[in-house]
Amino acid sequence: MSIILTGDRPTGPLHLGHYVGSLQQRVSLQQDHDQFIIIADLQALTDNADNPQKVRANITEVTLDYLAAGIDPDKSTIFIQSLVPELAELTMYYLNLVTVARLQRNPTVKDEIKQKGFGDSLPAGFFVYPVSQAADITAFKADLVPVGDDQIPMIEQTVEIVRRFNRTYRADVLVEPKAMLADVSRLPGTDGSGKMSKSLGNFIALKDSADEVRAKVKGMYTDPNHLRVEDPGKIEGNPVFAYLDAFDPNQAEVAELKEQYQAGGLGDVKIKERLTNVLLAVLDPIRERRERLAQDMGTIEDILQRGTRKAQTVAAQTLVEVRQAMQIDYFKN
Amino acid sequence: MSIILTGDRPTGPLHLGHYVGSLQQRVSLQQDHDQFIIIADLQALTDNADNPQKVRANITEVTLDYLAAGIDPDKSTIFIQSLVPELAELTMYYLNLVTVARLQRNPTVKDEIKQKGFGDSLPAGFFVYPVSQAADITAFKADLVPVGDDQIPMIEQTVEIVRRFNRTYRADVLVEPKAMLADVSRLPGTDGSGKMSKSLGNFIALKDSADEVRAKVKGMYTDPNHLRVEDPGKIEGNPVFAYLDAFDPNQAEVAELKEQYQAGGLGDVKIKERLTNVLLAVLDPIRERRERLAQDMGTIEDILQRGTRKAQTVAAQTLVEVRQAMQIDYFKN
Repeated sequence: MSIILTGDRPTGPLHLGHYVGSLQQRVSLQQDHDQFIIIADLQALTDNADNPQKVRANITEVTLDYLAAGIDPDKSTIFIQSLVPELAELTMYYLNLVTVARLQRNPTVKDEIKQKGFGDSLPAGFFVYPVSQAADITAFKADLVPVGDDQIPMIEQTVEIVRRFNRTYRADVLVEPKAMLADVSRLPGTDGSGKMSKSLGNFIALKDSADEVRAKVKGMYTDPNHLRVEDPGKIEGNPVFAYLDAFDPNQAEVAELKEQYQAGGLGDVKIKERLTNVLLAVLDPIRERRERLAQDMGTIEDILQRGTRKAQTVAAQTLVEVRQAMQIDYFKN
Repeated sequence: MSIILTGDRPTGPLHLGHYVGSLQQRVSLQQDHDQFIIIADLQALTDNADNPQKVRANITEVTLDYLAAGIDPDKSTIFIQSLVPELAELTMYYLNLVTVARLQRNPTVKDEIKQKGFGDSLPAGFFVYPVSQAADITAFKADLVPVGDDQIPMIEQTVEIVRRFNRTYRADVLVEPKAMLADVSRLPGTDGSGKMSKSLGNFIALKDSADEVRAKVKGMYTDPNHLRVEDPGKIEGNPVFAYLDAFDPNQAEVAELKEQYQAGGLGDVKIKERLTNVLLAVLDPIRERRERLAQDMGTIEDILQRGTRKAQTVAAQTLVEVRQAMQIDYFKN
């Protein structure tokens, strides 16, 4: 049994990309592992300090998405990052074990800084968030962290901090995590460009209504040269087929349809109809569960409070051990 | 009545420089003000992560120095930084309101980085410590912070964070602090070079024995060209006279002695004898109180625990207001 740390920044609704990339995996992992799911509001604030309302609102949304997608709060511990002060405390200790130069070299952060176009206005909190993430992972002694391949440098950074800590304080308190690569390649956006993402607005949310799903599939990018039904069409870079690969339970039929599309004679309207049905078969039950859950926000709050309490208990114990190893466990008598 | 935040990094014993520069002032300020004295162990760790034992040991030493010098724990709140987790939490929020570029421009930190010769090994914790200091100051809504003139940029940084916070969250939760400049110019070291400092080893500690004080005064730098008693000697840059200025209750006699020294006819041995007596008159009662206090470490621990509890109560209330202003006060019902 592993201890797993996974989670999301509460900055928007979860979408099909999350479902394929992580939610399904979590639903399966929770059966045999001790899974902590962090709703990373502190991390969301590192580049949303001006808009905490957005972060706040999305905590509930993300929780509803989790539960609707099959995360079981009796098996997984769902908690809110900012309500576990031990994470901030651990971050303060770890910041002393990482150099500014090392943070500047972190490839993931470098990419994100470029993407977000911070320039000279890079918030210090964003710059140091890999250290905060190391605190999140190590507080629960997680040995397994499911990530996309772009996140591997973050795990390497955590491993370095763990080694530096254990070496400096001659302790084996902290546990080195391993990255667990998601086995499904990333889902492209509905616009066919890059991956599905909240910020690019090219997503189908788990909570989208059936009409929204229909409209979004209708508007999806396909092969721009596939103008008439009888024209041959391209499969590569065509998100409609990427989605069918990911969600259609009948992959033999999908293989035939691909051949037909490439040869000519299969129209976009028709293949999109199939995709709509396939997606609704996945999304309808999720949406219905979600709507039912949203009727009783007291229970959602209870789940978050319970998970946060449990997470805090575990993190507090780690902090005790950390302070002991550092010999700053004052007043223990 | 002001709220004052002041304190020290527990990295070594307090010395005459502290006494003249801050301890005397604190003893006087505690009469009419609400004074919080932070033992900044977290900050000490930013450049002592490899040596937390030193930090730990000096917490008690510094507390003994405080009490021996006249800090009254019923009037001042003495507390340990790392035992107030709210300070780490506030730091996390403030980090998002400060840019990396702004931290790089902080003149105090720039100087210290150069002095300490960090180069590429600058710890991230040291780099961001002005933000942590802003948390220390604002957690208690301190409006007055006694500082040396080299620390003024730190207060400016805090003021910027306060303004940015109050503007961003349309609140007036945080209070802008003012720097209170120490009125005594800084005491030079016994070697005559620069100021008295722990790291330069040119100090006379409050806890030094009478013999140590005698030996240190004997070894003090004076005018290197003042070889024979009858030679004229220099006052400028001569720490013996700087100390007499600071501690000798009979300043009229000091003025006469200065004239005599400059004219020739006053030997270093004689003037140092006077200085020894002057210093022992200050230090003997402090040392005796200190030795008596050190007999009962349970009381010292009680004082620290009591002060820390009080500090935490105040900081927790500020954190509630901060989270409310940021609208991340979840589960308030």
